[in-house]
Amino acid sequence: MSTRQMHLVGHLLTGPSLHHAGAWRHPDSDAHLVLDPSRYENLARIYERGLFDGVFIVDGMNLPGLSEDRVSLEVEYGTLMMMMDPIPVLAQMARVTRHLGLSATMVTSVTPPYQIARQFATLDHLSGGRAGWNIVTGASPAVTDNFGLAALPPASERYDHADEVLEACIALWNTWDRDALEIDRASGRFADPSKVHYVKYEGERVRLKGGLVTPRSPQGRPVFMQAGASERGREFAARWAEIVFTIRNDKAALKEFYDETKGAVEGFGRDPAACAILPSIETFVAESEAQAKEKAAELDELVIERSGLTVLSSIFGRDVTSDPVDTPVSEVEVGPAGPNVMGVYQNVLTVRIEGREPTLGELAHLQASTHLSPRFVGTPEMVVDQMQDRFESGCCDGFIVTHALSPRSLDDFVDLVVPELQRRGLFRKEYTGRTFRENLQG
Amino acid sequence: MSTRQMHLVGHLLTGPSLHHAGAWRHPDSDAHLVLDPSRYENLARIYERGLFDGVFIVDGMNLPGLSEDRVSLEVEYGTLMMMMDPIPVLAQMARVTRHLGLSATMVTSVTPPYQIARQFATLDHLSGGRAGWNIVTGASPAVTDNFGLAALPPASERYDHADEVLEACIALWNTWDRDALEIDRASGRFADPSKVHYVKYEGERVRLKGGLVTPRSPQGRPVFMQAGASERGREFAARWAEIVFTIRNDKAALKEFYDETKGAVEGFGRDPAACAILPSIETFVAESEAQAKEKAAELDELVIERSGLTVLSSIFGRDVTSDPVDTPVSEVEVGPAGPNVMGVYQNVLTVRIEGREPTLGELAHLQASTHLSPRFVGTPEMVVDQMQDRFESGCCDGFIVTHALSPRSLDDFVDLVVPELQRRGLFRKEYTGRTFRENLQG
Repeated sequence: MSTRQMHLVGHLLTGPSLHHAGAWRHPDSDAHLVLDPSRYENLARIYERGLFDGVFIVDGMNLPGLSEDRVSLEVEYGTLMMMMDPIPVLAQMARVTRHLGLSATMVTSVTPPYQIARQFATLDHLSGGRAGWNIVTGASPAVTDNFGLAALPPASERYDHADEVLEACIALWNTWDRDALEIDRASGRFADPSKVHYVKYEGERVRLKGGLVTPRSPQGRPVFMQAGASERGREFAARWAEIVFTIRNDKAALKEFYDETKGAVEGFGRDPAACAILPSIETFVAESEAQAKEKAAELDELVIERSGLTVLSSIFGRDVTSDPVDTPVSEVEVGPAGPNVMGVYQNVLTVRIEGREPTLGELAHLQASTHLSPRFVGTPEMVVDQMQDRFESGCCDGFIVTHALSPRSLDDFVDLVVPELQRRGLFRKEYTGRTFRENLQG
Repeated sequence: MSTRQMHLVGHLLTGPSLHHAGAWRHPDSDAHLVLDPSRYENLARIYERGLFDGVFIVDGMNLPGLSEDRVSLEVEYGTLMMMMDPIPVLAQMARVTRHLGLSATMVTSVTPPYQIARQFATLDHLSGGRAGWNIVTGASPAVTDNFGLAALPPASERYDHADEVLEACIALWNTWDRDALEIDRASGRFADPSKVHYVKYEGERVRLKGGLVTPRSPQGRPVFMQAGASERGREFAARWAEIVFTIRNDKAALKEFYDETKGAVEGFGRDPAACAILPSIETFVAESEAQAKEKAAELDELVIERSGLTVLSSIFGRDVTSDPVDTPVSEVEVGPAGPNVMGVYQNVLTVRIEGREPTLGELAHLQASTHLSPRFVGTPEMVVDQMQDRFESGCCDGFIVTHALSPRSLDDFVDLVVPELQRRGLFRKEYTGRTFRENLQG
């Protein structure tokens, strides 16, 4: 029995496909409810039944593949789209759950810090202390076009800016002291004004003054999540992140990432245990290995290969849909502006299939069906063996769990994998905390 | 029996005080739940029980009275604060109602059009077609400070900018044709890409290109609400607004406002009936007139006079809390930057008490207890008499209803006033529409 416990965070987006680009075509998929609150409430209940620490909603603020001179294959095939603002979706999920952490992606480069601070403070109140912020610093040219902004500066400058955005948000979240609200009806004193502070933040790139209208929320600030992959991005994560998530298929690469990140967290004077490193996995689980393989194969058959190539196009930064599918991945030409999905491209180059470099076609299939994260297929014991191996060999503190067929694959995980994790003492048997941050510390 | 039907829209803010600055002190007030979803869900259910067309949440993005060199009396007395982002609050209210329109204030001058478009499209999906947008163009220096922005240009320029923001938002909302989504599992075709359009908006002040990630929402666009009071503001409202709301105490001034606005709406080639003009009212109602007066008096005694003066300070644009309370209102000095609550200041000058101009102290009391909107006190018959008189004499198409003691005053309105309105054929007996816009057209 291990005493160290895994953390599990669900991976969700408000589009038809999660990691698996074919799964929405399955007759049991909930993809027809993609714009309906009931889909997200149902998933929230399943995550909470599975005692997940939290769930995070990935976000994107452009329609992939849409441009002036071409129609979007991603729109046609239903891949990579994130259709709704995550905050109100999470607010609804909050009302059907009591413990589940609720994390939204928000981009530092296109959202005013005041909006960031107020939205997360609001979500933290409306959820009783369960808000999380998946901090993204970059925005593709398609996103900045939607905002009528010039292209962003290079990544290192964006992180300098993001550091200041976080400092400014923290200053805003500290406007109200914890005990500022009195609500004393007899005296007519609503709050102690000496405990509500004028804020003045003057960075090099971000300046603001005033104060947040929202009184201090239960967690004070949301749980910070981050996925920086560049050196500067990892420095940023080491300074701020309470959850670092990553997509890495290779165990050795994951171990190296883990050790380096934990070291960097310590370098900032932080307790390495206060930053959970969670790689993404996709699981197919059933009573027998054959059944599990059958579940995976059934979905994989629904993948339209071209959709994998369109997704890779966004990673390589140019249209690779007409490239020969037998090109080795390392020889695929990169677009003139460089790869434009931060971090993912580096991982693409480390992917191995049976120990060798994959071809473009093989990579397209992997991308479209697992998003390049490891896929564990088998009985609960087999899947948990692999999770436990990574966990106990110091590759991770738990996992980001993506589910292919929504909601069934998530039900399978909760009904089959979670009990096996619990049996081995690797995962909680009940929630002990009240907030998202307490889940992570428990 | 009248065949023309009134429209009723609730007035709400996420702070302790609605119009009445003393009411939160009452032992039955729900002010201690100001940051709790249950407060807003409860109110949503009451509005819907009363068959209201909708509710709108007023918003403000600064802490009133807070500055570098003084503590905030508004914070101390619990007045004028709007504490949470309205969108997630409305998303939660959507899940406990089926018909009620749900409108959020959003400021064109500090919010990127893409964010505006995506948030309202999301809310419209999550509510099944019940989103509304209370369009505000201005932002006080305290708000722009919170955003680290320079002070805004004068009102007329802000409206020119807002016109372009609306055009850009509409272009974004038209990204997806109504029938673009196919979700055809057999063919793998999620959407028809030829029905998803690249958007290019090029105004003088607003430029963007791309497309909204959110498929077309049930209403296509939110119901537009506006409260422009300046000439340019009323031109803006006449072009765009489906609901114009106003705070006017004087019946003759209201009639003039109504006729001018309807004329201006027609001037834009729009059907005047497509723009409902709703002045704000506050009611105290009970089985007997004496009881109703008692209800009002009980709350009025809880008003701290100084809190009325602090609110007026924000209207006059300077601290008037030390001015002699017997100064006639027209002689109160205005701050060097001019009055800073758009529109309200003009109304202040038209307020009459028993036919004469009020003093600063009398105005402070009115402001703190009714926000300068008319107060109707009496039996259901007496209150409805006054509403019917304004409605049938062509002063309005219904009312913005504010409730002093939350939730009790709203319960009183729904339980006593609504049935009397229905008895006289002035108000619906059931919802007939599915969306907020259909409520307004019904």
